[in-house]
Amino acid sequence: MYRECMENVRKKSPLVHCITNYVTVNDCANILLASGASPIMADEILEVEEITSISEALCINIGTLNRRTIESMIISGKKANELNIPVLFDPVGTGASELRTHATKRILKNIKIDVIRGNISEIKSILEDEGHTNGVDAGEEITEENIDNIIEMARYLSKHTNAIIVITGAIDIISDSNKSYLIRNGNKSMAKVTGTGCMLSALIAGYMGANKDDMLKAVANAVGLMGLAGDYSYNEMVRNNTGTGSFRTYIIDYISKATYKDIEEGIKIESK
Amino acid sequence: MYRECMENVRKKSPLVHCITNYVTVNDCANILLASGASPIMADEILEVEEITSISEALCINIGTLNRRTIESMIISGKKANELNIPVLFDPVGTGASELRTHATKRILKNIKIDVIRGNISEIKSILEDEGHTNGVDAGEEITEENIDNIIEMARYLSKHTNAIIVITGAIDIISDSNKSYLIRNGNKSMAKVTGTGCMLSALIAGYMGANKDDMLKAVANAVGLMGLAGDYSYNEMVRNNTGTGSFRTYIIDYISKATYKDIEEGIKIESK
Amino acid sequence: MYRECMENVRKKSPLVHCITNYVTVNDCANILLASGASPIMADEILEVEEITSISEALCINIGTLNRRTIESMIISGKKANELNIPVLFDPVGTGASELRTHATKRILKNIKIDVIRGNISEIKSILEDEGHTNGVDAGEEITEENIDNIIEMARYLSKHTNAIIVITGAIDIISDSNKSYLIRNGNKSMAKVTGTGCMLSALIAGYMGANKDDMLKAVANAVGLMGLAGDYSYNEMVRNNTGTGSFRTYIIDYISKATYKDIEEGIKIESK
Repeated sequence: MYRECMENVRKKSPLVHCITNYVTVNDCANILLASGASPIMADEILEVEEITSISEALCINIGTLNRRTIESMIISGKKANELNIPVLFDPVGTGASELRTHATKRILKNIKIDVIRGNISEIKSILEDEGHTNGVDAGEEITEENIDNIIEMARYLSKHTNAIIVITGAIDIISDSNKSYLIRNGNKSMAKVTGTGCMLSALIAGYMGANKDDMLKAVANAVGLMGLAGDYSYNEMVRNNTGTGSFRTYIIDYISKATYKDIEEGIKIESK
Repeated sequence: MYRECMENVRKKSPLVHCITNYVTVNDCANILLASGASPIMADEILEVEEITSISEALCINIGTLNRRTIESMIISGKKANELNIPVLFDPVGTGASELRTHATKRILKNIKIDVIRGNISEIKSILEDEGHTNGVDAGEEITEENIDNIIEMARYLSKHTNAIIVITGAIDIISDSNKSYLIRNGNKSMAKVTGTGCMLSALIAGYMGANKDDMLKAVANAVGLMGLAGDYSYNEMVRNNTGTGSFRTYIIDYISKATYKDIEEGIKIESK
Repeated sequence: MYRECMENVRKKSPLVHCITNYVTVNDCANILLASGASPIMADEILEVEEITSISEALCINIGTLNRRTIESMIISGKKANELNIPVLFDPVGTGASELRTHATKRILKNIKIDVIRGNISEIKSILEDEGHTNGVDAGEEITEENIDNIIEMARYLSKHTNAIIVITGAIDIISDSNKSYLIRNGNKSMAKVTGTGCMLSALIAGYMGANKDDMLKAVANAVGLMGLAGDYSYNEMVRNNTGTGSFRTYIIDYISKATYKDIEEGIKIESK
C-alpha cells in the first residue's frame, strides 16, 4: 500500500489545482512539489475551468475566501465533477462567520466532494451549522475517550456527503461511511505552525490525483506521511534547539526525502 | 512586567484578526502562533465585522491594500471600536502613493487606533502628509543625535491621534503623549528580511489583545522581544555562516522559545 | 563585469516594483533584499502608476493573474515605458489557459518589454500561441542536443519583441537577437521548490534596475548568480541531509552572502 501510493505520486506527478488562501499558499505549493506532485494555483473565474480541466485533482480551501474566489471554487468544482477529477474541500474556519458557513453549504450542495478535511470544530460546524472557531490554527480536542463518538460523527457525515472525512487532531481520523483509520502520529507543535492543515489538504489532493483506485488508502497514506513529518520535525527541533520557524522547514524537508519504508515502519495506524 | 505580559499571551492565546498584505502574511501568522497568540486572516467585506467581533485584537496593515480591502479595514476598525477591541495600524508605505496616504487618513479619521507602528518615513508622512518612501523595507535613520527630536515627533503624533506611537529603526521608540521607551536591541540585518516590521506589528497586536490593562508596557514588551529576536538571529546567522533566508527562520524560532527571563536579561530599554 | 554589476545593485539598492503572484511573492521580496535591491509590491490600479514612477525597475509576473491585476500590469508597464524604466515580464503558465495566453499577448502588444523570462514551454507558447503547461514549476527539457534550436528560437523571439529572452532549464539561455549566453549552473532540485523561476525574475529586475548600461550582461549576471545559488543549496542540502524546505532557505542565504568572486570563479558561462 505505502510503496505503491507514494511511487504513484512521484511517477505520475499529478497536477493539483489549488484555489486556496494567501496565508499558506506557498507552503501548499512546496509540500506538493516535495511529495512529487505539481501545484498550480489559479483563482480567476475566467480561467479556473480550464486549469481544473488539465489537472489531476482539485483542492478547494476557503481560508481567505472572498466573493470572487467563492464563485471560482464553485465553477472549478463543477468542472472537476464533470471530468471525474477528484475534489478535496478544506472548510477553513467554517462556523467562524456566516460567509464561511454559507460558502461551505454552497460548495457541498453544488459539488460532489471526494474528501473533506478539517479540524473537529470545522467538521462539527458542518454538521451543526453553528459553533465557534477559536482561530483557524487552534487545535481542537480529539482524545482516546471521545474517539468513538468522533468516528461516529465522521461516518455520519460521510454517509450524508458521500465524501471521505478527515478530522485531524491529537488522533487523526480518516473515514468513509463504514470504514475508518485512526493515525496516532504527529504532535502538538504542528498547531504552532500556520498551515499544517492546509498543507495536509494539498498533500492529500496530490495523493488522490495519483491514486484514484483506492482513495481511502491514499488519503490515509497522506495523513500518515504528514504525521510522520510532524514527528520528524519535532525531533529535529528538539535536537537542534531551534523553534517553530525551523519546524515549518523540517516538514517540507521530510516530505521531500521520506521513503515508503519510513511510512511502513513509522506509521501508527489502526483500522476500525 | 515581562513575565506577566508574556504569560498572558501564552495563557489567553488571544485571537488576532489581521487584515494584512499578501507579501508577509505567512510570517505574521507564524510569529503570532510562535508567541502563543492565534491568528485569523480575513479581508472579505461580508465577513470582517464578524471576524473582528470574535477577536481580541485587530491588526490593520496596508502593505498591499486595494479598494476592496480598504473598505474591510474601515468596517473592521469601526466594529473593533464599538466592542473595545484594541486596534493596531501599520501604515506600510504611506507617502509612497496618494492611495496609501489617503487610506491612512481615512483610517485615522474613522477608527480610534490604539497603536500606530511604522518606520520613521511612514510616521513622518502621516504628520507631514507628504514625503517619499524608498521601499517599504528600507531602513530610515534614527540616531542618538536626532532621537530627542523623534521622541518629540512621536509624542506630538500621539497627542494628535490618542494612539501609542511605535517608530522602529536603529533605536525603537514607543511613546504615548508623555511617556516614552527607547529600545536598543535588534540590528540592521532585520531590514534585509521582508516583513520584520509587519511581523512586529502582528506581535504587538497579540500582546495588546492579552494585556489590555497596561498597553504601553505590553507594546514595549513586544518591541523588546522582537529586538531580541533580531539579536538572536544575527548571532545565529554569523555562527552558522548562513544568510538572510535563515535569519527569517531564526526570528520565528526565537519568538517560539524565548522566556520572560530572556527579555528581562536582554532588553536594553530606557524610559523617558 | 561581475564585480561592477553586483556592486551596482548593492550600492544603488534599486527599488523594484513587483506586480506578482501571491504564491511566491515573499520569496521574491526576500531575494531582492538579499541581493541588495529593494522590493515594493503593489497591484491596485489606483496606485500602480505612482509606484512604478518611483521605481528603478518593474517586474510583471502573471502567476496568479486576475482581471484587476492584468489592468494594473498594463498601466504600470506603459508608465515604465514612458519613464524609461526597464520592464521584465515573466509569463508564468502562459499557454495553460486562454486568459494567460491572452494576457501575455496584451502585455507584449502594449508594453515594450526589456526582458522576458520563462521556461521553454512558456517561451514556446508565446511563439506558437498554443501548447500545454504541465505545472508552472515543472521543468521542461533543454539538452545539449537541442540547445542550438533553442538559441535560434530565443533569437527569433528577441528579434520579434526587441526583448532579451531568458529561458531557464538544465541549461539557461540569455539571448538578444544576435548574442547569446549559455549558463550551466544550477540543478534539478530547483524545480522542486516553488518560485525559483519567479525569484530569478525578480532578481533579474533588480540587476536591470541597477545596470541599465549593459542589460544583457546584467541579466546574465543575475542568471549566473541564481544558478550558483542552486549549486550552493544542493550542496548544503546533501551535506546537512535536509530537503527541499531547507533548499528554499539556502537560496536566499546564498544570494545574501555571495561575493562577485564567487560568481567569477563559479559561473559556467559560454557566449555564442
